[in-house]
Amino acid sequence: MKKHNFSAGPSILPQEVFEKASQAILDFDNTGLSLIEISHRSKEFVAVYNKAVALVKEILEVPSTHEVLFLQGGASTQFLMSAINLIKNDGGKAAYINTGSWSTKAAKEAKNFGEVIEVASSADTNHNYIPKGYEIPTDVDLVHFTSNNTIFGTQFQAYPETEAPLVADMSSDIFSKPVDVSKFGIIYAGAQKNLGPAGATLVIVKKDILGNTGRAIPSMLDYQVQIKGESMFNTPPVFAIYVSMLNLEYMKAQGGLKVIAKANEEKAAMLYQEIDNNPSFVNHVAKEDRSLMNVVFLLNDTSRDAEFLDACTAAGISNVKGHRSVGGFRASIYNAMPKESVQALINIMKKF
Amino acid sequence: MKKHNFSAGPSILPQEVFEKASQAILDFDNTGLSLIEISHRSKEFVAVYNKAVALVKEILEVPSTHEVLFLQGGASTQFLMSAINLIKNDGGKAAYINTGSWSTKAAKEAKNFGEVIEVASSADTNHNYIPKGYEIPTDVDLVHFTSNNTIFGTQFQAYPETEAPLVADMSSDIFSKPVDVSKFGIIYAGAQKNLGPAGATLVIVKKDILGNTGRAIPSMLDYQVQIKGESMFNTPPVFAIYVSMLNLEYMKAQGGLKVIAKANEEKAAMLYQEIDNNPSFVNHVAKEDRSLMNVVFLLNDTSRDAEFLDACTAAGISNVKGHRSVGGFRASIYNAMPKESVQALINIMKKF
Repeated sequence: MKKHNFSAGPSILPQEVFEKASQAILDFDNTGLSLIEISHRSKEFVAVYNKAVALVKEILEVPSTHEVLFLQGGASTQFLMSAINLIKNDGGKAAYINTGSWSTKAAKEAKNFGEVIEVASSADTNHNYIPKGYEIPTDVDLVHFTSNNTIFGTQFQAYPETEAPLVADMSSDIFSKPVDVSKFGIIYAGAQKNLGPAGATLVIVKKDILGNTGRAIPSMLDYQVQIKGESMFNTPPVFAIYVSMLNLEYMKAQGGLKVIAKANEEKAAMLYQEIDNNPSFVNHVAKEDRSLMNVVFLLNDTSRDAEFLDACTAAGISNVKGHRSVGGFRASIYNAMPKESVQALINIMKKF
Repeated sequence: MKKHNFSAGPSILPQEVFEKASQAILDFDNTGLSLIEISHRSKEFVAVYNKAVALVKEILEVPSTHEVLFLQGGASTQFLMSAINLIKNDGGKAAYINTGSWSTKAAKEAKNFGEVIEVASSADTNHNYIPKGYEIPTDVDLVHFTSNNTIFGTQFQAYPETEAPLVADMSSDIFSKPVDVSKFGIIYAGAQKNLGPAGATLVIVKKDILGNTGRAIPSMLDYQVQIKGESMFNTPPVFAIYVSMLNLEYMKAQGGLKVIAKANEEKAAMLYQEIDNNPSFVNHVAKEDRSLMNVVFLLNDTSRDAEFLDACTAAGISNVKGHRSVGGFRASIYNAMPKESVQALINIMKKF
């Protein structure tokens, strides 16, 4: 039976990407060697890296003011790196928008390096909306937000306007739609949703915002060191970068982010329509802030939760249990999720 | 034609490991899902992680005083983490033994956190020996050394004696022979030589040396946070951990580190014997400090270097060019290197 994988991350990737990655583990590009036994400085892998960077630049239309890096450590390391690279050593301040667990964690790490100002928060209603109409101080060194909230099922539809460098954790919606990269100081994303396997972290950073803090930065945490080393200051995560490159090729072949965004809108609309029309289910997120990536919903009769999960499992639908902090269910419908899998879930919901 | 892969890292792994890893990318453990699309918190992956940790403990005989972690960021991140976790905030000092590029880089990162004392150095002769007979101050917070030097082809045969926590970068000789882990405060190793693919970093840390610096440590850099999260404070490098687990299973099936050490001694002896007996080649490393992992050698007539490399290539021997800082040639003969590949290289050398 076909599996419908609604995992929040690491998550579904295109079947074609799995097949090519599997083959490269046995024989990479007819070299007679496995992808994972070759030097990261071999001409074959440098070509993979360069292609991955070029595809990110092309697909996201990254301006020449920005550099593209593939690092390690996930978004959690970027919480720390974005702060240490931007917050001034002497009296630095940073503004954070609190839309849930991940933005709270990001703000916590920034407190190691300066004053953190929470400029807006949706904590009052357990993060079921995106704050709007707040003021951002003009004397901050960065403004940070989380573009999509996997746990709470919310997503920024418009981005904060600010003169200070805008920093976004886009781990769970990068490559799901076009983004005007020129507006951002730093965009970072753990690869393991729409890009590739866990183990690589995409960072897009505007060069002219770096080197101004007056603080010593350890080499591995210093974007300028990583830029100079072209992500190879030390051994990069070869496999995760290779699979990301394969998936970027796939995105390009699909027609790019406008085509991908349209498909994502359609899939999300199907599922939200079922939730809104089906009297058994409810979604408490403000309609204008609903995530197109992570659709959260509850049964009105929560005593039937286990019954619903069993019905899903019987239909080959996996990983739709909601996060413990909101309960209920969560369907993560990233780029690679086929419409037929969304329909399979809707069919089970209709029977309820 | 069979390839003989002498790459210094990422490097050769057993063929059986490549085959199982390739299969798991298509269908992991009969789940109907790819290894790289499942949650790191799924019971299937948690079992993989637990098995990897248990095998490290069993194969290296790790005492219960120590914890085993699989992190990201390579040894270069451990340069920073070992220092920030051990050097006291107020007047801390650390002792470093300089045996080449990697130990120099480690010491550089420690300077961000306290005074660094170079207690011994082999820089006077371009690092062709391991220093001996030096004094280590008793009032330091850590003593750091690099157990095997991939570039210069040297290896510690006996380890420094110290009361302070002993910290070792064992990236290039871990799992090549038994080690008395109880003597160490921290052992760390990038996976990409004897353990697995690039993207995971093994850390073995003694619990009672942590939490004594009096400094704030960012979460991702804090060993206590990583221990509490069982390497899953954030999403771990799923694929790299899985392949490491496969290779650990392979090591155990081979009979463990005593058996592996004997094979490594035999392979290295074959190659050093050829170098010593063949009038065309020379090795300048002090005999008692020669590495069993990275065998460096030079042609007496360096004008024939290109000719030798061509002869190697023609015989399917790859990656024997020496590092630019020593020139000549380097044959990295990690655990997975078959004796027949070492013999293939010796055959080419004999013809010269």
